[in-house]
Amino acid sequence: MIEKITRPTLLLDTKKMEANIDFMVEKADRLNVKLVPHFKTHQSKQIATFFNERGVDAITVSSVQMAQYFVESGWKDITVAFPFNRLEVEVINGFIQQGVNVKLLVTDAETVSFLSDKLVGHVSLLIELDAGYNRSGVSTEQTDKIKAIAREIIKSENTEFYGLYCHPGNTYHSDSIEDTKRLWADVIKKTNTVREALSGIGSALIIRIGDTPGCAIVEDMEGIDEIGPGNFVFYDLVMNYLNVCAESDIAVAVACPIVAKNDMRREIVIHGGAVHFSKDHLFDKDEKKFFGEMVIINETGWSNIIPDAKLVSVSQEHGVLKVSDELLETLHVGDVVGILPIHSCLTANLMGEYLSLQGQHFDHM
Amino acid sequence: MIEKITRPTLLLDTKKMEANIDFMVEKADRLNVKLVPHFKTHQSKQIATFFNERGVDAITVSSVQMAQYFVESGWKDITVAFPFNRLEVEVINGFIQQGVNVKLLVTDAETVSFLSDKLVGHVSLLIELDAGYNRSGVSTEQTDKIKAIAREIIKSENTEFYGLYCHPGNTYHSDSIEDTKRLWADVIKKTNTVREALSGIGSALIIRIGDTPGCAIVEDMEGIDEIGPGNFVFYDLVMNYLNVCAESDIAVAVACPIVAKNDMRREIVIHGGAVHFSKDHLFDKDEKKFFGEMVIINETGWSNIIPDAKLVSVSQEHGVLKVSDELLETLHVGDVVGILPIHSCLTANLMGEYLSLQGQHFDHM
Repeated sequence: MIEKITRPTLLLDTKKMEANIDFMVEKADRLNVKLVPHFKTHQSKQIATFFNERGVDAITVSSVQMAQYFVESGWKDITVAFPFNRLEVEVINGFIQQGVNVKLLVTDAETVSFLSDKLVGHVSLLIELDAGYNRSGVSTEQTDKIKAIAREIIKSENTEFYGLYCHPGNTYHSDSIEDTKRLWADVIKKTNTVREALSGIGSALIIRIGDTPGCAIVEDMEGIDEIGPGNFVFYDLVMNYLNVCAESDIAVAVACPIVAKNDMRREIVIHGGAVHFSKDHLFDKDEKKFFGEMVIINETGWSNIIPDAKLVSVSQEHGVLKVSDELLETLHVGDVVGILPIHSCLTANLMGEYLSLQGQHFDHM
Repeated sequence: MIEKITRPTLLLDTKKMEANIDFMVEKADRLNVKLVPHFKTHQSKQIATFFNERGVDAITVSSVQMAQYFVESGWKDITVAFPFNRLEVEVINGFIQQGVNVKLLVTDAETVSFLSDKLVGHVSLLIELDAGYNRSGVSTEQTDKIKAIAREIIKSENTEFYGLYCHPGNTYHSDSIEDTKRLWADVIKKTNTVREALSGIGSALIIRIGDTPGCAIVEDMEGIDEIGPGNFVFYDLVMNYLNVCAESDIAVAVACPIVAKNDMRREIVIHGGAVHFSKDHLFDKDEKKFFGEMVIINETGWSNIIPDAKLVSVSQEHGVLKVSDELLETLHVGDVVGILPIHSCLTANLMGEYLSLQGQHFDHM
C-alpha cells in the first residue's frame, strides 16, 4: 500500500475506527443512554455506514450544509448542533418535505418565533445550554430566558420541544481524568436543574451532552438521556495527551513524503503543512509547540509514536520534523513517514478523502 | 448581493485584487525584474486569467498537484517551488510530454541524479538556497554542497541549470519596514555570493526571491532577476499589521451569518470557524490572540475595520466576536458580517470558492 503513496495521504485504520465505534456504542448501551454520534469529525457517507451497521439511526452534524450531505445518503434523523442560522430556513423546509426528522438548536425566543412563521412542517427543538464553556448556548443560570424560549417553542405549532443540549467543550482543557469527571458531574447537575425548572412548561425533555472526553471517560451518566460525541471515531493527539485514548486508538495518520534532510539542524522536511494539518498544536514537556508526531508506516498500519521526532513547524505545504541523530540516519529523501494529527477533525476536513490500509478510498464531504 | 448570502462565503473584491496585481506587475517592470507570481494563494484558474491579461506567462506553485491544475488550464511555464518530491516524477514526465516548461527546486545532488535517470525530457532546475529562514533550502554558507549539486545538474543531459531560488519567509516576522529591507539586502548579498562562487560551473544563472513583504516594500532589487510573491494578490491582516499593505488593499473577506448574541459577555456568535479561517492568529495590543477582524458588508463591498470587534475564538464551525456595547446594539441574529482573514492563503484554501461583489463565482482548486 505504502508503495503507491506519492503525496500527502490521509490513512485510515478501519480496525481501530471500528473498535472506537464499538466502544462508544457498547458504553451507551451499557449506561442506558442513546448515542447520537456527531459526524463533524469524519464527514463521510461511507464511514457513516459503520455506525448504521451498529444500529445508530440518529446523527448530529455541525452545519446545515453537512446535514444536506447526510440527507442525500438517506439519514432521516439529524440534529444540527449549532445555534440555528435563520438564513438557511429554506433548506430545513426541504428536509421536512423529504421526511427528515430535523432537530435544531435554539438560543433565543426570536429564532423560535421566526421558525414558527417560516417552517412548512414540524421540527424538534433543543435549547442549547451553556454550563461554563462560554461559547454558545444560554447560561444555565438564565432561567427566565430559558423559560421564555421554552414557552415560545410550546406556543408554536411547528416546533416540538425535544430537550436540552450542552457541549461542555471545556473538557478539552481538563487537567486530569478526575477534572473531566468533576466537570461532567457539574454539567449534569446544572442541566437537570434547568429541566426541573421547566417541568411546568415542557414534558419528557431529554438532555443531550456532547464532548468526546466526557463521553469516553465518565461512567456515571445518571440524568443524561443522549450523548453526541464525534472525535472518538478517530481520536487524535489531543485526546491522547488528555489520557482519553491510548495512542494505539488513533485511527488516522497522514502519510507524508520526505523531500529534504538538513543534517546540520537534524531536520527532515516533509510534504505536509498547514493545508494538511491546520495549525493546531500542543506543547511538549519543554513548553515548545509541535504540530504532530511521527510514526513509521509498515505493512499492517503504523508503529507507535517515535520519540524525539516532533513536527516542529508547518507553513502552507512544508512541515519540518526535528529528529534525533540516530533517527536522522534511517530516514531518506523519497521515504514516506506517518504523522499523527493534533486534531483529527480539522485534518480530515483539509485532506478531503481517506485511504484505508486495505487500499479502499473513503469519501469526505 | 449580500441578501443572497446564507452561509460562510468568501467575498472577492476584484477591483482591489486587480489593483494589487497591477501594483506588482508595474513594480517588476519598473525595477526590471521578471514577475513569476506564486499561485498558491488564490489557486484559481479564473483568477489566473487576470495575470495572463497583464502579460504574465510564467507562474509558481507549491505542489505538483497544483501544477497539474494549472497545466490543465493551459499554463506552459511552471515552477514548483518546493523541494522536489521524487515520488511524483511520473507526473513531471507527463508535463514534459505536454510541452510544459517545468522548473523544479532541488536541495541535494542525489535528487538531481534521480531526475537524470527518470526524466523523459528536459526540465530546468533551481537550487533552493536558505539565507536564514531555516525552513528548506541549502544554507548559502554551504558552498561545497551547492557546487556539488550544480555539477550534478550540469552533468545530467535532461536538467538545465536555471538558477537560484530563495524564499526569505522570515520577513513575515519583521519588526519594521526597515528590518525587511535590511533582511532583503542581506539575502541579495548572500545569493549573489553563491552565484559568483558558481561562475565556473553554471552560466547566466538567474536569482529568484519569493516573499510578498519584501517584493512589496523593497525598491532596491539590483542583483535580482525574478520575483515570485503570492500573497499580494489578496493580502490579509498579517500583511496589514506588517505595514506591507493598507487595510483597504485586502481583497477578500468572509461573509458570516450571525447566529447568536450574548449580551452579558458582549459577544456575537457567527458561523465562521477553524474550517473557514484555519487557526492562524495575531496578537492585539494587550497580547491577546485574535483570529480575524470585523467589517460591515455594504452595497459596494465592505467598510474599514470596525474597532473593538475582534474574532476572539474559533472552534470547528463557531466563531466568537467580542464587541463594544454600542456595536452590540446594532448587530442582530440573522445579519451577515464580514471578517478579514489573518492569513488569506489558508482561508481561500479552506473556503474552496470565491464570490465576487458582482455575484460571479470564481473557482479554487
